[in-house]
Order: sequence, then structure tokens, then C-alpha cells
Amino acid sequence: MSKTTHWKDIVAEKRARQTAAIPKEWLISPPPNTVLDVTEVPEQCGLLSPKELEITNTADVAVLLAKLASAEWSSLEVTTAYYKRAIIAQQLVNCLTEIFVERALARAAELDVYLKATGKVKGPLHGLPISLKDQFRLKGLETTMGYVSWIGKYAEQDSVLVQILYDAGAVPFVQTNVPQTLMWPETYNKVFGRTLNPHNRSLTSGGSSGGEGALIGLKGSPLGVGSDIGGSIRIPASFNGLYGLKPSYGRVPYAGAVNSCEGQESVLSVFGPLSQTLSGVKVFMQAVAAGQPWLKDPLARRAPWDEDLYKLVPYGGGKRLCFGIIWNDGQVAPHPPITRALEITKVALLAAGHEVIDWDHYRHKEILMNVSKIWTAASDSDYADATAPTGEPILNSMNFSEEEYVAEVNTFLPPQKEVSAYDLWKLHLEKRTFRQEYLEQWNKSVNATGTGRPIDAIISPVSANASAPHGFNRSAAYTAIWNALDYPACTFPVTKVDPKVDVKKPAHQFLGDTDKTHYDFYDPEKWANAPVGLQVVGRHQEEEAVIAFAEIIADALKNQSHAKL
Amino acid sequence: MSKTTHWKDIVAEKRARQTAAIPKEWLISPPPNTVLDVTEVPEQCGLLSPKELEITNTADVAVLLAKLASAEWSSLEVTTAYYKRAIIAQQLVNCLTEIFVERALARAAELDVYLKATGKVKGPLHGLPISLKDQFRLKGLETTMGYVSWIGKYAEQDSVLVQILYDAGAVPFVQTNVPQTLMWPETYNKVFGRTLNPHNRSLTSGGSSGGEGALIGLKGSPLGVGSDIGGSIRIPASFNGLYGLKPSYGRVPYAGAVNSCEGQESVLSVFGPLSQTLSGVKVFMQAVAAGQPWLKDPLARRAPWDEDLYKLVPYGGGKRLCFGIIWNDGQVAPHPPITRALEITKVALLAAGHEVIDWDHYRHKEILMNVSKIWTAASDSDYADATAPTGEPILNSMNFSEEEYVAEVNTFLPPQKEVSAYDLWKLHLEKRTFRQEYLEQWNKSVNATGTGRPIDAIISPVSANASAPHGFNRSAAYTAIWNALDYPACTFPVTKVDPKVDVKKPAHQFLGDTDKTHYDFYDPEKWANAPVGLQVVGRHQEEEAVIAFAEIIADALKNQSHAKL
Repeated sequence: MSKTTHWKDIVAEKRARQTAAIPKEWLISPPPNTVLDVTEVPEQCGLLSPKELEITNTADVAVLLAKLASAEWSSLEVTTAYYKRAIIAQQLVNCLTEIFVERALARAAELDVYLKATGKVKGPLHGLPISLKDQFRLKGLETTMGYVSWIGKYAEQDSVLVQILYDAGAVPFVQTNVPQTLMWPETYNKVFGRTLNPHNRSLTSGGSSGGEGALIGLKGSPLGVGSDIGGSIRIPASFNGLYGLKPSYGRVPYAGAVNSCEGQESVLSVFGPLSQTLSGVKVFMQAVAAGQPWLKDPLARRAPWDEDLYKLVPYGGGKRLCFGIIWNDGQVAPHPPITRALEITKVALLAAGHEVIDWDHYRHKEILMNVSKIWTAASDSDYADATAPTGEPILNSMNFSEEEYVAEVNTFLPPQKEVSAYDLWKLHLEKRTFRQEYLEQWNKSVNATGTGRPIDAIISPVSANASAPHGFNRSAAYTAIWNALDYPACTFPVTKVDPKVDVKKPAHQFLGDTDKTHYDFYDPEKWANAPVGLQVVGRHQEEEAVIAFAEIIADALKNQSHAKL
Repeated sequence: MSKTTHWKDIVAEKRARQTAAIPKEWLISPPPNTVLDVTEVPEQCGLLSPKELEITNTADVAVLLAKLASAEWSSLEVTTAYYKRAIIAQQLVNCLTEIFVERALARAAELDVYLKATGKVKGPLHGLPISLKDQFRLKGLETTMGYVSWIGKYAEQDSVLVQILYDAGAVPFVQTNVPQTLMWPETYNKVFGRTLNPHNRSLTSGGSSGGEGALIGLKGSPLGVGSDIGGSIRIPASFNGLYGLKPSYGRVPYAGAVNSCEGQESVLSVFGPLSQTLSGVKVFMQAVAAGQPWLKDPLARRAPWDEDLYKLVPYGGGKRLCFGIIWNDGQVAPHPPITRALEITKVALLAAGHEVIDWDHYRHKEILMNVSKIWTAASDSDYADATAPTGEPILNSMNFSEEEYVAEVNTFLPPQKEVSAYDLWKLHLEKRTFRQEYLEQWNKSVNATGTGRPIDAIISPVSANASAPHGFNRSAAYTAIWNALDYPACTFPVTKVDPKVDVKKPAHQFLGDTDKTHYDFYDPEKWANAPVGLQVVGRHQEEEAVIAFAEIIADALKNQSHAKL
């Protein structure tokens, strides 16, 4: 990449190629920007046939897989339907990066031939289109990850997870947008621009897996893979009304994918699924485990699917659980819709016969300070190296300052003077102490429950706000804590912001300046229609249990009329 | 610890307390220093009764446990027998640090009462005395780890592993010697002095778990726990004729123990068992897994004992295996006894119906350079901080320079200018690439075996030499490679150095200056009677498989007359 070419020219060329990759017949007349909720457009724009709508409205991935396996629906027609819907989504919320229609449809057709010829599925994900965050390498395609300097980097081989998905019979069919550096809870970069929230386009889709969130929020993909180092799966999942699982480190293989701040091993980024239903989350995790990633990725944990853990054998079979609820983290009080979601969930779980107790935010502030120092120990150097080839700017805000208007410049993570290896060792020691203490707090809760066990899981906000206007989603505090502790966590949708119900409350005693700013910022009308989700958090490396807890919560919410508020 | 007291005075006081802790009636008249092989002294010195000899000669830990569980032998008599033998060992090879006879015997007596009262064992290790490297905290005892500055640090609570051992019914009864900083393959420090090899006291017992190696080599403990970051379990296990398992990171809990270079998380130290038989290795690993360390240590891997893996289900049930042999690592050719051990093992495995192929030393040199840079990224600062309180010297050699004679000063690991966090990230990235490539090499070997699988395990020297004169064991290259790759590895004894058989060979084409020095240094007479062991290495996180492979090898050696050479 020559510096003699201005980075904007490189972007223009890449964007032109992206536009050209879209079949002309799939272009729609998108509504004007003033239309904020575009979730009905795929149904109404006329591009999708009734069958394509039936296919893409089949939220339960297990049902989709069953129809694919029985050849009731061919992979070609399922992939075509989702591809068309994904292209509609792209025109509405700008969620895609790599578009490769012919290649994906050819793969789908091959799978159809295979099934017809052998009578057998290729694997547990046979024929299923899957969207991938723009970190995965697919042989022959570019992986840009929002860096102008990475345009033109074509992959020579597939990431290990992509290999496993191929072996499982899946059809990777699009890649999705990210923020530059990945270290933001929004989605905007200089290559592909900004991804919007389909429920309210004046709001962010969240980040860093914001392309996945917006795409699946519009049912443009039945199942997607994002990454999460501080909330990057859970924030967009929750902002778009989805289930999204952040596993513990190493459960889903990372080898062969690109990343920000590579070599930072202290608090690891992890891959995980996002989907409209938990069925998608579960089949993904089962298929990945069945692919034995530990034989292909040296950092992958050797952990076959644990059906006993999924059946909650160590938790009394899940019959009478005790959940701890975090009402606030002691730093920023959640906006009214989030608190309402916690209340709805508590009522639903009590009605289902479970216990719910309050859970304290044990040293969250100090733990987050530690993880922030770890992330920024050398991130400035990493970003400088990544952007140097083209001289593209390093973003220090996700707002509209450059394009639309000049606004306050805000940095999500404060930069830090580069630290020494010895400083980093000391941060690790501090982190280990926090993790030890948190585990002991968890164990001690045996005295506060009525189950004879410590709390079984924690229910927490994903964010103190349900999305935010672009440029103003500035905290990952409610999510990053679980990355620091390496506890698996799964989001679940609860409700949507209703300005009539979620009125601004009288000022409370503020927990600090950030809390006051956050309180002042809330305006129910601005948040209208935003999905509101929460997360359930389990013990270290117990992904199967967290999926089971999320299923129990989802069932309780379904059975509870309050959930429909 | 005040600097006004000279560190030598602090040491004198600590050593006086250590001596006072030994019951006077357990003192023997040790042979003069000129007697090199002292392995028969415990049998001959007259301190142990016939029954105590019968007990301590029961190498099979499962047999010991069965006799304890049936109350055929009481824990009090078993613990007394081993304690006496451990004190004999102390007088012969200086292997102990903390000695607490009354406390251990009281614990043993309690277990006897419990068994009598309930008819049940306390746990899977009921009544078994276990020795612990001087890194474990036992409430109320000092943990010195070879630092004068740590004398007087009394533990306020037990390490997590100690808690698990207590719950399993074990009797921790002594703590064992280490080298200052732990980062040496010998055992010498300014507090407790030097540990000798009981098979030939002019040789080192290895390190850093050299106290364990020498103690168990004299059957002064049926089972001990060491730690291994670069060979520190396997080197002393092999130098003393023992089985010693280095698990992958996090399988055995480290929480609450002390360590060198804490916060160094790039290549982790791990705990593991040493024993006269594999039975000890296996029961230890089963008992630890049964203790669910992941509920007590936030860094412990969630990995219950995997019986299928132990039965080698993914390896054809272990019926016809293919082992890859590393004859040399491309840097230093092994001395004749080591090569002979490899040959013996190969013949034995072929006779048992397995395959044996050569295995290349894929990028070992570069991987070791990487791990050395990681270890030393900030170790100088760590050592300086640890020794500052008393001003004790930081050892830069394990030889006799200060006490006996002035010899060449040798530094095991070359010091490194302190590096930045960004440098460390780059080292991590390099490490990950090496690990990925090594895994791919392993998988590719499917084309070289006749089993339809890649090689099942690797057999490698533990060291290019079978022990060494004090101060001259200067490499952990054959062991540290598996720490860098995080593959589990278990040592097994094969033979002993016989000067008549293991004659010096004609000079080969040297692999480098170090190889030449190492060749020149060999003198069969100096090594007389030194045990010769090897290690078997398995895939990442597959400890159960490695134990099973070691059992298969041990059986093959037993059945093969060559093994008796």
C-alpha cells in the first residue's frame, strides 16, 4: 500500500468493489433517513418471495437445520433468501463488509448435491448460511477489519473456525462491519462507514460486533459469529434484541483470524455466536465442540460438549435455581428501561419457582481499572503500526465529528503511557487477586441462598443504556467485568423502550460525575423502540450451564405476561 | 526484616530452628562425603524397623492407599515411617526445608480416629503422607522458597492445592528444597544450602524441584508435589529415577502458593506429582480433579478426570500406538547413557507391538529463544525486589564459587534489558505462531505413521545429560520446549549410567559450541550410577493420555530384558 495514494482513494476503490458485488436486482428503494425503525422493510419492500420470508422468519435455527437436513428446503434456496435479506439490511443499516454471492451460492448448491447423492448431511450445520464478523479469514477474500491499510490483504487460508464451520456443513455467506481498532462499543470505521440500529437508526447498533447485531436484528442471517473482549458480542446482541454468548477464553478457536492488539494475552478476545434464538447459540457451540478445535488451534481449550453440564447436573438439574441480580454496578445507574427489564426478569423467575437475590458489585470499579490498563498497555503502538502504511487517521471518537458535525471528541479508553513488561506482570498479579476474591465472594453466597448452593448465576445489565445515539455509547463497564473474570455470559432480550412507560425518573443520589452525565443524557423519546436485553453470567468455563440458564430465563419470560410490556 | 541484621545471621537463626525441629532420636551417623551412593543407607542405618522399611519400600501408592483404607496400616505408622526416612534423607542429601513432625503426626492420628469412628476414608488419599515443594503455603508455617528475605513469612491460610489434599485425606508432612529464584535446573540457595543426588552425591539432584527428587529418590516420601515452568519437575524426577508429570497450564491449582516472577502469565509454571511409580502420579491427578479445583482457583481449568482419555479412546484404545522419538534437539547431542535409554525404549516398544518413528526437532531453538526472552522480560526486577529486604546476594551460578572454591561463574539464563509491554505482545505473537506450526507438524505426521493417526506421543530426552556435577547442569532445553508449547509430559526411568557400557564416543560433527563443550564435559566415571530417564509428551491438555502412554512404556520396558541393562 503506497503512501503516494491517499487513503481516501483506496477507500473509494474498495467501496466501489463492494457496491459492484451487490446484484443489481437486489437493490431496493430504501426509506429516507428520517424513517428510524426499518425492521419491517424486509417484509414490505417486495424483494423477498413469500417462501423467502417464511425461511428468513424461521428464527429457530434447529427448525431451519431440520428442514435443510430433510431437504424440505434446499441450502441454495435458504442461502439465497438470507442473502437477499442481508443485502436489504445492508441498504438500510450498512452492516456488511465482504459480499460474495456467487461463491456462497455455489457452496450451498454443492451441499445440496452432496445430500442428494449420499442421503447424508455434511455435518451438524448442513446448508446453514452463517455470517462472520470481519475478523475471519476466508481463503481468497480480503479481511479489512476496518483498517484502510488492510485493504488488499487477501487470505491464503481459512481461519480454523471457518474450517470447522465448513466441515460442519455451514455456508459462510457475508462478513460484517466493525469499529476501527475493535476497541469500541459502536461500529464505525473509515473503510465501510457506520452501522445503524435497525430498530431506531438514530441509535448505534453497538459494537464491536455491530455489523452482526444489525444484520441478525433484521433477520438477514440466522446465525452469526462475533468476538468479545469487553462486551463486543453482548452489547450489539442486546442493542438489537438478540441472544449472544461470550464463552470463556479459548472455547471457540481464534487461530488464523485477525485481531486488534495481537499478542495481548492478559484478557483475551473470544469468538461466540449471535442469533434470534437460543437454539442458534446452542447448535453453534455444539458444532464447534464437535469439531475438536483443540486439535487445530494450540490455544483452544480441550473441552468436548458437556451434556451433564448443559443438563445442570451440578445445579440440582436446574429445578430450583438461585440467581443474583446486579441492579447497578456502583458506578453508573442503569436508565429506566434497563431497570424495568431487571424487574420483569425477577418477577418471571420468581413465578417460575426460582430464587432471586441481590448481588453486590464486588470491586467492579477496580477490576475495570485493571483491565483498562491491561488493554491500553501497548494499544497505542499497535494502532499506530496498523494505520501507518496509509496514514489513515486513528479514530478517537465514534461520533460524527468529521462527516456531519463537529462534536465533543471523546475517547472510549483513555490512552496510557506505554508500560514495561514488569508493570504488566504487576497488573496480572492484581488481576489474579481480583479473580480469586470474586470467586470467594461467589462461594460465600451459599449462606445467602435457600438452595444449599452458592448462587447459580448472575443476572446483570449488559449496559446502563439500551443503545445510544451515535457517538455516545461510551462504556463497556457492565460487560468487560466478565471478560476480566473470564466468566461466560449470554444475553437475552426482555423488552423494548416505550417512552410512555420508561419515563425519566427523579434524580437519584449520583454515584459520580459519569453517573450524572449518564442520567442527564436520558431522553425516552430518543430511545423509542430500542431493544432492551440483559445478560446471565455463569462460572468460569461453564458455557453449557450458561446456555441452560438462558433457556430457563427465556422460558420464564415467555410464560410471564409482564415480559410482553 | 531489618537490614541492620546481616542476612547470614538470619539464615543461622532459621537453620538452627530447622535443626531443632528434628527429633534427636532420628539422628543417624551419616557416611562421609566420599560415599557417593547413599541409596542403601536408609535400609542399613538401623533407624527404621522392618515394618517401617516394608512401608517405605511400598513404591506402589495404590497399594499403600489400600492398606491405609483397610486400616491394615494406620496413617500414624505410615507417616511416622516416611517421616523417619525423610529425616534420614535430610541428613544424607539436604532435601528438606520445613520440618513439622508433631503437626503431621497429629493429623495422621486424626485420620485414624476418623476411619475408626466412621468406617469411611476421608477421601481418595486417606492417610497418605505427601511432601510439598517449598512453594506451598501451609497455615502457620513459613514459606521461604530459598529467599533469606522471606524467612519469617508465616502463612495465614493454606494454598488451594493443600486444601484439596487435606479434603482428600492426605497428610502433608515436609516441605522440600529449591534453588533461589526457582529458575535453575539445580537446587541451591542461601537459606538451606544445596541438595545432593542420593545416587551419586557428587551430582546434582536437579531442579528446581530438587528437594522432592532427592527425597523421593531415597523413598523418603511416597508422593510429592513439585512445580515445572521449564523442566523443574521432570529434571529432578529423571535425575533421581522417578516418574514426574508436568500437566498443561492450570490443571493443578496454583492459587495461594508462592512463586518466582509472579504475574508472568505468558509461559506458566504448573504443579504436578513425582513418585516412584506411575500409580502415585495417577492417584494424585485423579484426587486433584475430584477436588474440583476450578471452584477454588480462578485460573484452574474446568477439567474433571476423563476416563475415556485415560483409556486412550481417541488413540485406538492404545492397542497399536505410534511414538515419535527425538534423538537430539539440533542443539546439544545427548550423552551416551541418554541415547542408550532411547534405544532401549524403542526396542521395548517395538517388541510390544507399537510403532516408533523419528521425530524432528521442529524450530526448537527458536522456540526456546522465545521462551527465554519471555521469562527474562522482567525477571531481574523481580529478583531484585525479592532480595532487597535483606540484601542477600542474587545467585548467578549454582556452583561452589562462594563456599568451596572459586569457579567459573555461569548464568543459566542470560539477563535481558527490561522490555516493554509491546515487546512482550510481540513475543506472544511469535509464541502463538510457533505453537500453531508445531501443532500442524504433529497433525501432518499422519502421513508418516501406519496407524491412520498422527503420532500419538513423543518420546524425548529430559536432558542431554543424566544429572551433572554441581554447578554444571546448565540447560533445560529438552524440557522447556514442552512448557512453551504447553504439552503435558511425564518422565519415566529407564536405566542407570554404567561407566563400562556408557563409554565416551568418538567426537561427532558438533551442532555448535555448546554441543562441543557438552561433549567434552562427559566422563563416564563421574556419572557412575546416575539414573537415566526419558519423557513422554502428549497433546495439549491431555494429561490422562500421557499417564496412559507412560504406563504402556513402563510395561514395555519391564517386559523387555534390555530394560535391565
